[in-house]
Amino acid sequence: MCELLGMSANVPTDIVFSFTGLMQRGGRTGPHRDGWGIGFYEGRGLRLFQDPRASSESEVAQLVQRYPIKSEVVIGHIRQANVGRVCLANTHPFMREMWGRNWCFAHNGQLADFQPVQGFYRPVGDTDSEAAFCELLNQLRTAFPEPVAVQQFLPVLVSACVHFHHQGVFNCLLSDGDWLFAFCSTKLVQITRRAPFGPAHLKDVDVIVDFQGQTTPNDVVTVLATEPLTANEQWTLQQPGEWSLWRSGECVLRGQS
Amino acid sequence: MCELLGMSANVPTDIVFSFTGLMQRGGRTGPHRDGWGIGFYEGRGLRLFQDPRASSESEVAQLVQRYPIKSEVVIGHIRQANVGRVCLANTHPFMREMWGRNWCFAHNGQLADFQPVQGFYRPVGDTDSEAAFCELLNQLRTAFPEPVAVQQFLPVLVSACVHFHHQGVFNCLLSDGDWLFAFCSTKLVQITRRAPFGPAHLKDVDVIVDFQGQTTPNDVVTVLATEPLTANEQWTLQQPGEWSLWRSGECVLRGQS
Repeated sequence: MCELLGMSANVPTDIVFSFTGLMQRGGRTGPHRDGWGIGFYEGRGLRLFQDPRASSESEVAQLVQRYPIKSEVVIGHIRQANVGRVCLANTHPFMREMWGRNWCFAHNGQLADFQPVQGFYRPVGDTDSEAAFCELLNQLRTAFPEPVAVQQFLPVLVSACVHFHHQGVFNCLLSDGDWLFAFCSTKLVQITRRAPFGPAHLKDVDVIVDFQGQTTPNDVVTVLATEPLTANEQWTLQQPGEWSLWRSGECVLRGQS
Repeated sequence: MCELLGMSANVPTDIVFSFTGLMQRGGRTGPHRDGWGIGFYEGRGLRLFQDPRASSESEVAQLVQRYPIKSEVVIGHIRQANVGRVCLANTHPFMREMWGRNWCFAHNGQLADFQPVQGFYRPVGDTDSEAAFCELLNQLRTAFPEPVAVQQFLPVLVSACVHFHHQGVFNCLLSDGDWLFAFCSTKLVQITRRAPFGPAHLKDVDVIVDFQGQTTPNDVVTVLATEPLTANEQWTLQQPGEWSLWRSGECVLRGQS
């Protein structure tokens, strides 16, 4: 299994605090030694850092922890390999251009007997996760060759996720830089931080941050993760089959399949 | 105008030396202040570092200079913007998946009155370079919906490059991780280093490296660049209209259009 990290915010926000917590689970407080990756949107651009090495030992991970990249949408992942060997091509998150935007995807779980249909988007590595991402995009592009609003293609996306959910375990995060979509198959938690901000204490390492000093009263920041990252805050558990769509830190649509 | 850097080698080789020289031109010894990027293939995976800031001031560039990533194919670029504002989405190299491989592209030059045909691959940013890359891929994918050997699609690729060359300035580097393709429209130089290796002295900064201590007698490493990067070696000038295909450091095919 792997761990997911997602962020949606209404102002460019740095994810260093949450990332620092997650990284500990990549070989130190958790067993996810088989790589990590994180994608930050900057406008329509996507900045992707990945490493097939354990995050707790990765030089690139140290850079990301030192370097406060600010973004409104972030997708991160640490990996404990089950399908596909440990190499860069098998390291989440995966990225493809669709409709002139960078789409970014990370998956936690596994799909038994998944036989992807060959389409336009094709996996480069050999994980079931990347194959499922390509299948999602192929289904969307087949249904909508030209760009449409997220509300319009959402039913196709949700129905593909539900199909994968019935074939195995399919917790996922997906974004095109504008919105962040989450599907909970077994495990996904979320927290929305807004004023009044207080201190937060990481579970996995002795780090406390006081968000009040780093925020303005209008900031809204939602973090999604496989497991709660802080010890002193109340995280909301999503239900199996629950999906949600986030924009600017707020949940704009959600449903239960 | 911009500057290109490419490498093809028969063993995983670090590009730190050449990259260090190129980075100086991003704001220190050269005017290319509008971003830089470099893509390293690791197997079928592509590791991309990019920054819309000047390379001589970029923290990510410093990481890349400290961190000897070894690769058999590398494509790098520093940018002086002419078309498209300075932002991550407009920063080379660009990347797309085609036929289940990561394709990477960088361009030096500009295309006057270029009207791309809308196809499957679409630009995310607003540079003529990314639009030309999408057009190249769309032409290849239309001609060959399924993967074929590079020798088979090369005529389509060369003909598209010649077309761009006639529309403006189109020096480019392109790779799918297996081979490295170069097209010289106005300016491109190359050097192939093999035993006996000697010292090399960067033009742009006082750095000397003795390749003998870092290589084995069988190593073959070709570097392509817009301008020679070293002062004490003989670089070969490519001719306008010349194209070349490199694999494992050797030129496997070349032609003059």
